[in-house]
Amino acid sequence: MCGIVGYTGPKQAYPIILKGLKRLEYRGYDSSGVALLHNNKLNVYKKKGKVAELEESLVGANLNANIGIGHTRWATHGEPNDRNAHPHSSASGRLAMIHNGIIENYAQLKAELVKKGYQFTSDTDTEVLLNFIEDIQKNNGDGTLEEAVRIALKRVTGAYCILLIDEQDPETIIAARKGSPLVIGIGKGEHFLASDASPIIEYTKEVVYVNDYELAIVRPNELILKNLGNEKITPYITKLDMELAAIEKGGYDHFMLKEIYEQPSTIQDCLRGRLNASAGTITMSGIDDHIDQIINANRIMIVACGTSWHAGLVAEYIIEELCRIPVEVEYASEFRYRNPIVNKGDIIIAISQSGETADTLVALEKAKENGAFIFGVVNAVGSSIARIAHAGAYTHAGHEIGVASTKAFTGQLAVLMMAALKIALKKGTINNERFQELLNELADVPEKVAAILKNADAIKAIALKYKDAKDFLFLGRGYNFPIALEGALKLKEISYIHAEGYPAAEMKHGPIALVDDQLPVVFIATKDSYHEKIVSNMQEIKARKGKIIAVITEGDTISPTMSDDVIAIPTADELIAPIISVIPLQLLSYYTGIAKGVDVDKPRNLAKSVTVE
Amino acid sequence: MCGIVGYTGPKQAYPIILKGLKRLEYRGYDSSGVALLHNNKLNVYKKKGKVAELEESLVGANLNANIGIGHTRWATHGEPNDRNAHPHSSASGRLAMIHNGIIENYAQLKAELVKKGYQFTSDTDTEVLLNFIEDIQKNNGDGTLEEAVRIALKRVTGAYCILLIDEQDPETIIAARKGSPLVIGIGKGEHFLASDASPIIEYTKEVVYVNDYELAIVRPNELILKNLGNEKITPYITKLDMELAAIEKGGYDHFMLKEIYEQPSTIQDCLRGRLNASAGTITMSGIDDHIDQIINANRIMIVACGTSWHAGLVAEYIIEELCRIPVEVEYASEFRYRNPIVNKGDIIIAISQSGETADTLVALEKAKENGAFIFGVVNAVGSSIARIAHAGAYTHAGHEIGVASTKAFTGQLAVLMMAALKIALKKGTINNERFQELLNELADVPEKVAAILKNADAIKAIALKYKDAKDFLFLGRGYNFPIALEGALKLKEISYIHAEGYPAAEMKHGPIALVDDQLPVVFIATKDSYHEKIVSNMQEIKARKGKIIAVITEGDTISPTMSDDVIAIPTADELIAPIISVIPLQLLSYYTGIAKGVDVDKPRNLAKSVTVE
Repeated sequence: MCGIVGYTGPKQAYPIILKGLKRLEYRGYDSSGVALLHNNKLNVYKKKGKVAELEESLVGANLNANIGIGHTRWATHGEPNDRNAHPHSSASGRLAMIHNGIIENYAQLKAELVKKGYQFTSDTDTEVLLNFIEDIQKNNGDGTLEEAVRIALKRVTGAYCILLIDEQDPETIIAARKGSPLVIGIGKGEHFLASDASPIIEYTKEVVYVNDYELAIVRPNELILKNLGNEKITPYITKLDMELAAIEKGGYDHFMLKEIYEQPSTIQDCLRGRLNASAGTITMSGIDDHIDQIINANRIMIVACGTSWHAGLVAEYIIEELCRIPVEVEYASEFRYRNPIVNKGDIIIAISQSGETADTLVALEKAKENGAFIFGVVNAVGSSIARIAHAGAYTHAGHEIGVASTKAFTGQLAVLMMAALKIALKKGTINNERFQELLNELADVPEKVAAILKNADAIKAIALKYKDAKDFLFLGRGYNFPIALEGALKLKEISYIHAEGYPAAEMKHGPIALVDDQLPVVFIATKDSYHEKIVSNMQEIKARKGKIIAVITEGDTISPTMSDDVIAIPTADELIAPIISVIPLQLLSYYTGIAKGVDVDKPRNLAKSVTVE
Repeated sequence: MCGIVGYTGPKQAYPIILKGLKRLEYRGYDSSGVALLHNNKLNVYKKKGKVAELEESLVGANLNANIGIGHTRWATHGEPNDRNAHPHSSASGRLAMIHNGIIENYAQLKAELVKKGYQFTSDTDTEVLLNFIEDIQKNNGDGTLEEAVRIALKRVTGAYCILLIDEQDPETIIAARKGSPLVIGIGKGEHFLASDASPIIEYTKEVVYVNDYELAIVRPNELILKNLGNEKITPYITKLDMELAAIEKGGYDHFMLKEIYEQPSTIQDCLRGRLNASAGTITMSGIDDHIDQIINANRIMIVACGTSWHAGLVAEYIIEELCRIPVEVEYASEFRYRNPIVNKGDIIIAISQSGETADTLVALEKAKENGAFIFGVVNAVGSSIARIAHAGAYTHAGHEIGVASTKAFTGQLAVLMMAALKIALKKGTINNERFQELLNELADVPEKVAAILKNADAIKAIALKYKDAKDFLFLGRGYNFPIALEGALKLKEISYIHAEGYPAAEMKHGPIALVDDQLPVVFIATKDSYHEKIVSNMQEIKARKGKIIAVITEGDTISPTMSDDVIAIPTADELIAPIISVIPLQLLSYYTGIAKGVDVDKPRNLAKSVTVE
């Protein structure tokens, strides 16, 4: 996490950096800061809180500069305050640096520097790395900053994207990355640096994605890329196809609400060109090109984190049912540190909105070394995971800015569903009739999602009724069990209510102890083969006076008699139901968060893409 | 859940039934009741709340009777009140019945009876079944109650254990089971009926376990067993080896505390006769007899619920690491209703304390039909799961009465660890040195557990400090991740604090939004290969001012600098650590529950063994 922005060129740097930081605030908003260089003098301004607070504190300040770097922070080491905010200055005051990532051996480096007499003003690993670089520049190598950075980075373990400026080199930004993303925008006589393309897009569409272990020396008219061995690398220039409108709110109060409402069209975008219900076909080159390998897989492992992990759980149920291939879903963070059993020919499906999730990325590198075939389900085009995968399918949900993922999740489900259907047909584990039936059902999803969104006011009323609850349970069975987990996660993220999801039958093994007449229990109880069983579970909660909010299928007359509140949604095949039943839960969370006064696009402590471990 | 007791013989029935109900209260304690038959007159007494409340309400009543049935309830249909308590009486008042289980098609049967003019005084499925039986006796078959029960049971779907008495047949109890347990104790001129052997043990050690679809006609001097086809079955008499002392508190305030403190000896009992560290051997006939099948398995599936599911997660990590066989852990309730991929030669490990867990049991029946090999890890000797398994290993933890499982869990871990080591050695995936090292480590566990128990006062002080917290997070990585889940479940069960467990790295994907300066976060952060990473996670929580309680390895000097409170435990190999690191979490929960005034042996809404779905 953490967002970084840099500029060098003829324009005023501060407004560009400030606007960029606001775009990157989804990556962290504990504190922010800028370092501006003018007339060989470095000015560093930092502030606890969101970027707007930094902006306000700088009203009236002299911010004149044509080069600068800025940072919005998600704290890892040291609490979020002015002192720990970035940029950090070196002991001499000559260098300023911003950093995204974690330096794992910082304690050891710090001890060495303290022995040499260095003092530290912050608790961060970043200040340690910066002084380590300065110390090397003074005492080792050829005395250039570039060389010092190279030597330092060979010594550190962990992840980083850093930008450095030097008082005595008034046009140059030095940048380097390992594990944390960096994009450089190429303008006319100017360069832009940022964690993703959103701060760059309104100035230029030509960008270079910097790779791990690469160093960039960036001046207004020059971009030099090198590896850590000091060999030059030719920059590979990519054309952005993002539009500025995609990263603005377009009349909605929040990005989250905008993104929830975009789902009928983002799901359609995801299906378009792939699913053709009238022809009875699905076209996905990522599957077609590797079909033999996929249908002969002994085992599929799905690796993901957070909301994407929930999409993985749905996929497990669907793939096992349709394709009869055993599927195991792993938390990326757990998978990578174990010694997992990955054999040649195993398939790994990696699911990630940003395509930059640190744990997932490293897990894939390891599996790839072991000979696994990597299939990426990623939203951000050109991201690291998309590049490391052997094949894949983009979710095409567009830039997702709300910290709580919504449209990326339904996109993931649509892609995974299409992949499962395609594999099942080729493998012969589904008959034509059932294939066509599910194709039709999938094609109808955008329309059904739109119908639910029309009912938002009723869901808002339920949110207002229960907004003061301290706790929530979300229960589902089968295909809707992961949706219970996702509903709970959403509510937790943006309302700070302690919501927890469980398979409905498991609640008797512990969570039911939480039930009293104050506890709202959300049942995802649409009509499926588990329906009678979940109705028994509703009885058990009702017998203990819990408040029941049930997401049910239109026309169900039994569940309402046991529920305090119901949200009826259109009928769908049970395999398709999850894409639909999650929508009311997204709205429930959104309206609860708003009612509680939470900044739902920037809930506390969180960051959009988790690029540290 | 629900506990049932019956008696017919020369003694006073009420004191025997009352004492039995108290022993069975772990199965449910929402309400209780007895039906006593004397001089061809049925008296039914019922009361909301625990058995003690029933007892108190009956002081001074005329309870003279030599035959009777009693019930302690865990509510499924209808809230816990006097009216919904068992026994239920039939419309004529002639029959009384108690029932454990769920009649799934009760709504349809009820509608038919209502049409015939029946009226119902409760909301239960039980009253429906009883009147259905009475109606059949009046209008169908040969007019006997036995025949009516047989006809009725062929019509119902769901699970049941029922006991029935009839005003006009003053010596007979009719009993039947499907899915819910029933034991009949054989005395001299008397018979005892109960959900498990604990109400029977002080009167006789000769028992008959009734099987599914069997009907028992029980009189003082006669026990007739039949199937639903009216064919006689010869009862198979088993000798109990349980001692009365094992089901009493032995000087401790609660069964839970007693069971926590028993762990050095129960783990020893589990290892005894199996693990021989000096000879470098493990003897487990359940593994030895099927070793070829096991080492050649493509895949192991572990099926369990609740705390046993957590033991399964630890086993997944250990078996994959040591034996290099892919393992998948499934919630029994989810597994059974899907169409899981189970192939001939797959191994299913079923883990259950009671051996009666409904969901696990049915899941196994299904897998067995598909040709899987079933290995049971069960605590209750002779229980249904032990009987259905092809092979297995008992945990030998002794009768566990506290609703929150403790000693059964550590027994499960010890058994699974031995099994993994044995399989790895035969498979050649572990070398002799490492095998011997882990053998020695395992042999040292009882002593290390005893050392932690000596430190209970320090853990009690931490419990008192945080007892008023509304929420808790429990975080761990790797082998200790399932222990985080288990720690959270324990606290939730017996303190009603909303505690949630997570893999430590996943907290950044949502749960971290809950962190503020009031939230206690328990880290299971013993020294292992994940230690540096979990220290980074502690930094992230500390940066957001969460309160950190860390379970650490003795001698660790880094974690205490970041923690508000630490619990240091003895050094252990990371594979063995979970059996040890769970102990302080059991104590933390116990003392928190006590400090909050919870009846920790009978926390609200729960029941010990979940014998309904």
